[in-house]
Amino acid sequence: MNPDFSTQVRQDLDRLVPLLEARLLKALHDGEAPRVGEAMRYSLEAGGKRVRPVLCLLAAEALGSPPEIALACATALEYIHTYSLIHDDLPAMDDDALRRGKPTCHVAFGEGQAILAGDGLLTEAFTVLLGDETLPADRRLLAARILAEAAGWHGMVGGQSLDLAGEERTRSGQAYALEHLQLIHRLKTGALLRAALELGGVAAGASQEQRARLREAGAALGLAFQIQDDILDATSTAEQMGKRVGKDEGQGKITYPLLLGLDGARTALQEATARAIEHLQSLPHPCSLMAWARFLAERKA
Amino acid sequence: MNPDFSTQVRQDLDRLVPLLEARLLKALHDGEAPRVGEAMRYSLEAGGKRVRPVLCLLAAEALGSPPEIALACATALEYIHTYSLIHDDLPAMDDDALRRGKPTCHVAFGEGQAILAGDGLLTEAFTVLLGDETLPADRRLLAARILAEAAGWHGMVGGQSLDLAGEERTRSGQAYALEHLQLIHRLKTGALLRAALELGGVAAGASQEQRARLREAGAALGLAFQIQDDILDATSTAEQMGKRVGKDEGQGKITYPLLLGLDGARTALQEATARAIEHLQSLPHPCSLMAWARFLAERKA
Repeated sequence: MNPDFSTQVRQDLDRLVPLLEARLLKALHDGEAPRVGEAMRYSLEAGGKRVRPVLCLLAAEALGSPPEIALACATALEYIHTYSLIHDDLPAMDDDALRRGKPTCHVAFGEGQAILAGDGLLTEAFTVLLGDETLPADRRLLAARILAEAAGWHGMVGGQSLDLAGEERTRSGQAYALEHLQLIHRLKTGALLRAALELGGVAAGASQEQRARLREAGAALGLAFQIQDDILDATSTAEQMGKRVGKDEGQGKITYPLLLGLDGARTALQEATARAIEHLQSLPHPCSLMAWARFLAERKA
Repeated sequence: MNPDFSTQVRQDLDRLVPLLEARLLKALHDGEAPRVGEAMRYSLEAGGKRVRPVLCLLAAEALGSPPEIALACATALEYIHTYSLIHDDLPAMDDDALRRGKPTCHVAFGEGQAILAGDGLLTEAFTVLLGDETLPADRRLLAARILAEAAGWHGMVGGQSLDLAGEERTRSGQAYALEHLQLIHRLKTGALLRAALELGGVAAGASQEQRARLREAGAALGLAFQIQDDILDATSTAEQMGKRVGKDEGQGKITYPLLLGLDGARTALQEATARAIEHLQSLPHPCSLMAWARFLAERKA
């Protein structure tokens, strides 16, 4: 990793992840339904890079606010992301037994409890966000609307549905266009990453113009993130990734390397990253977010 | 059915269901992910009694407001209820192929799309409720918080998890207490019915006292509803119910008739209904809700 931004990213992680992780599990104790609570915590504790919530906290900082103002938004984002992983891993979806080096939720708790753990985290995202009394009510309402829109069938859920339907079509031999692939990723990965930056902005009281910049930067980052995911799936080892790799090709999934070749995919990745940085530059304190944009494009897992 | 309240219930249904159904499907067209949209509409159009949304609209009327004020709340409740049916019917949960006389969502669309249709409806509930500009922002925020709490792992999801875990325990021979059965139902069915009445009140600007009355009445109605469900499962034919019956016993599920006998279950049903009516009586215009309480206790399907 290039030292000029790796230091920044490492410092941000050291500062922000402990703050976030304390909050992530706080709401998930002492329920009357211990089994599903345990499954929810299990998947949250599996770790991962915490990209979405950290970007959310950094977006608040980029507008000059302390990260704490966006902590409920960041928590809600990570609940939504974690629920989507639990459901995506199910046998009826991607059928993965390993996630971040640990057995997936349905392997550890059974399919029924895993479905419910996902449902529980999705719902709890709104409980946490709407109930954060430290955030002015109008910002809470706006943030929750943006989150619901990004996570729902016009966003992440829709993208996952298209992806699943696409696998069915590819298996039966139908051709796929780059445009359709981009639509899937804009919805499946892009919507929530875009929301991550915008929610940080909303929590910090962003202007319309600032929110638009954060949305555009988030959209470009989301695209870059997905392209790099495809590249890593095609080129990494399972050990590096902590999950099964090469599965896209095995499942007949259409990916950027498959459509554009590895070099073409790497060019598209650089273009998207440059676009993200361009939008971020106009914010009051953009350094951390810009370092993250570079980091995400060069990550190895 | 006793004519004194059956006429009232029929009139309410004739007035309110068309209003509700027009709204239910309005938000679910023109998405970029047609397959999951179709699955969401399919399950919503399967009909059912619309008990939760109608109770919500009647609660607003009981406080002297027009039902339209609570239409977004009612829609959100029906989305949540429908999502829970889709997920409950999955092979990993209750494994039902028939619901309201039609193939269940996963039979019609495949398991993956059915899981996503549930996720989509759950999320869309918040989009619809938080985005309803006709409702003052503070009522929207409060209603969405109550809904998230009732639907999540401290409510409906938690109840379903306990129920599922309970089946596992029963199969392995462990005894079950009435107290535990009541906890399951309070969460699984009760929480959302309680929220249905409270949300109608919140939309209509209820006082703290009125909200408490609606909550208590909703809790009692929820219990009555569940007891009658168990009684019907034990005594009806599949034709009357539009779904498989006698399945509780087949699956080793603990029910009220099993624990209390049929007569004991009927007595518990009457007590819960009387408690609901007692709380409703103090509201300004309680007639419709009281008729519904009697109707739900005597329903045949």
